[in-house]
Amino acid sequence: MHWVIKMLECLVDGEISTFVKTTNRGLNYADGLFETLCVFNGVPRGWQAHMDRLGAGCERLGIDMPPQAILLREVQTVSAGMAGVVVKIVLCRGGAARGYAPLADAACVRIVSAHGLPQDIDEKAVTGVRARICDLRLALQPALGGIKHLNRLEQVMASAENSDPGVEGILLDREEYVISAIAANIFLVLDGRLLTPRLDRCGVRGVVRGQLLAAFSARCEQRRIQLDLLREADEVFTCNSVRGIVPVTAIDAQEFAIGPLTRELQGWLHKDGRA
Amino acid sequence: MHWVIKMLECLVDGEISTFVKTTNRGLNYADGLFETLCVFNGVPRGWQAHMDRLGAGCERLGIDMPPQAILLREVQTVSAGMAGVVVKIVLCRGGAARGYAPLADAACVRIVSAHGLPQDIDEKAVTGVRARICDLRLALQPALGGIKHLNRLEQVMASAENSDPGVEGILLDREEYVISAIAANIFLVLDGRLLTPRLDRCGVRGVVRGQLLAAFSARCEQRRIQLDLLREADEVFTCNSVRGIVPVTAIDAQEFAIGPLTRELQGWLHKDGRA
Repeated sequence: MHWVIKMLECLVDGEISTFVKTTNRGLNYADGLFETLCVFNGVPRGWQAHMDRLGAGCERLGIDMPPQAILLREVQTVSAGMAGVVVKIVLCRGGAARGYAPLADAACVRIVSAHGLPQDIDEKAVTGVRARICDLRLALQPALGGIKHLNRLEQVMASAENSDPGVEGILLDREEYVISAIAANIFLVLDGRLLTPRLDRCGVRGVVRGQLLAAFSARCEQRRIQLDLLREADEVFTCNSVRGIVPVTAIDAQEFAIGPLTRELQGWLHKDGRA
Repeated sequence: MHWVIKMLECLVDGEISTFVKTTNRGLNYADGLFETLCVFNGVPRGWQAHMDRLGAGCERLGIDMPPQAILLREVQTVSAGMAGVVVKIVLCRGGAARGYAPLADAACVRIVSAHGLPQDIDEKAVTGVRARICDLRLALQPALGGIKHLNRLEQVMASAENSDPGVEGILLDREEYVISAIAANIFLVLDGRLLTPRLDRCGVRGVVRGQLLAAFSARCEQRRIQLDLLREADEVFTCNSVRGIVPVTAIDAQEFAIGPLTRELQGWLHKDGRA
């Protein structure tokens, strides 16, 4: 589920620019966080949920989060006049030291950019996507689990395993538990219940995942999920803020039907444009 | 062992610049590698060893390494006219896709910059450094173990645990094995033998570490090292390419004498300017 899209517009610390300093700590140490969200006609979907996750990440890393009003204004600036765009916000810890230790009181660097929507954005939600189990296993790091930080080399390596962009990669952790797709969360339906992996040791707590857990708490469970359990599922789907809910129609050689609960949740998500 | 030094000069893809594109994959995904080395009067110390490690990292990540002659010319350009500087080389995978998957045939981005030597570079080698055991535990990721990649958020977080730059942090992995200092390798001397951690699951295979292992192979051993064993050591020292061999004089409350083998190895390293 990757795509190549031309960047449309970019602000760095509020100024029109497509450059950052070579001393940037995001570049040198992956010392930062990011968010990816859709903006339709100037309205960012799930804005508060994205800000809440970014805030949680800033708190974990000890980065001072910029005021939400500033970020919102910058998101609206880069998406102005567009019917629909993907906006990426990258926050890098400020300061330009050579050396890992963060400097106190260094204002973080904001990079806010707009990109075209993926061309197949609706198609995959309808037809579903085939998936494979990645060879790479995610490392366990509770200090970084759940937040959307810039250390993404595992995801790059997992993506490089398979050159077919039509096949989604599913990631397990070092203890062989299912964690997520490469750039999306994963849910399974089993006997009418919704199960999704706990993300306390690796993975990213996605915004759509959070919305599903909140709205359907009575039938949802976060737990450790072994691959065998995933294979027994009645329905499997992935979710993220750009593509919404995408049915998984196969994992390796095993086929899955697109089920009624997946379709119901797609309808629920679309109705209010939550993600 | 961190320090703040003004950057002196910088080349990006061979041109004088202190900026990279916001679409850079090193910035967005930590998709790249780096090297840090000393250059004295135009001569980079341990050049071939640094190039060999960079090459090993490129091979692991599937990045086409630029010709060494180009990197050498750029290192010499940024260090020209200086008696002694630290040069950092950052290589980022090329291509600017939104999406984790690497693009084929995208030439990588080279950032080569010169920085002043740390002011206390000789002092610590003489007096040694006190150390503490970091709270953070390194995640185990064999796919990235040993190479000097850009995913350095663990090192940033470990550095942030303690604000005293005079105290070195020692990192253990999730299984409680000793791995390294935050920005240096670690050796211990026990009954005349040199022991250093295996770095197949995390950590960076340092250039000075490699030189010691090669030159003293008969008395060296790479093995899993528990904290108890470290505490029983007769001598402990760290090593990296900038500071050479630095004696560890204490780990938390436990004191260590600076021993004869540490001093002997410092003399050996300095004699030929290997690191």
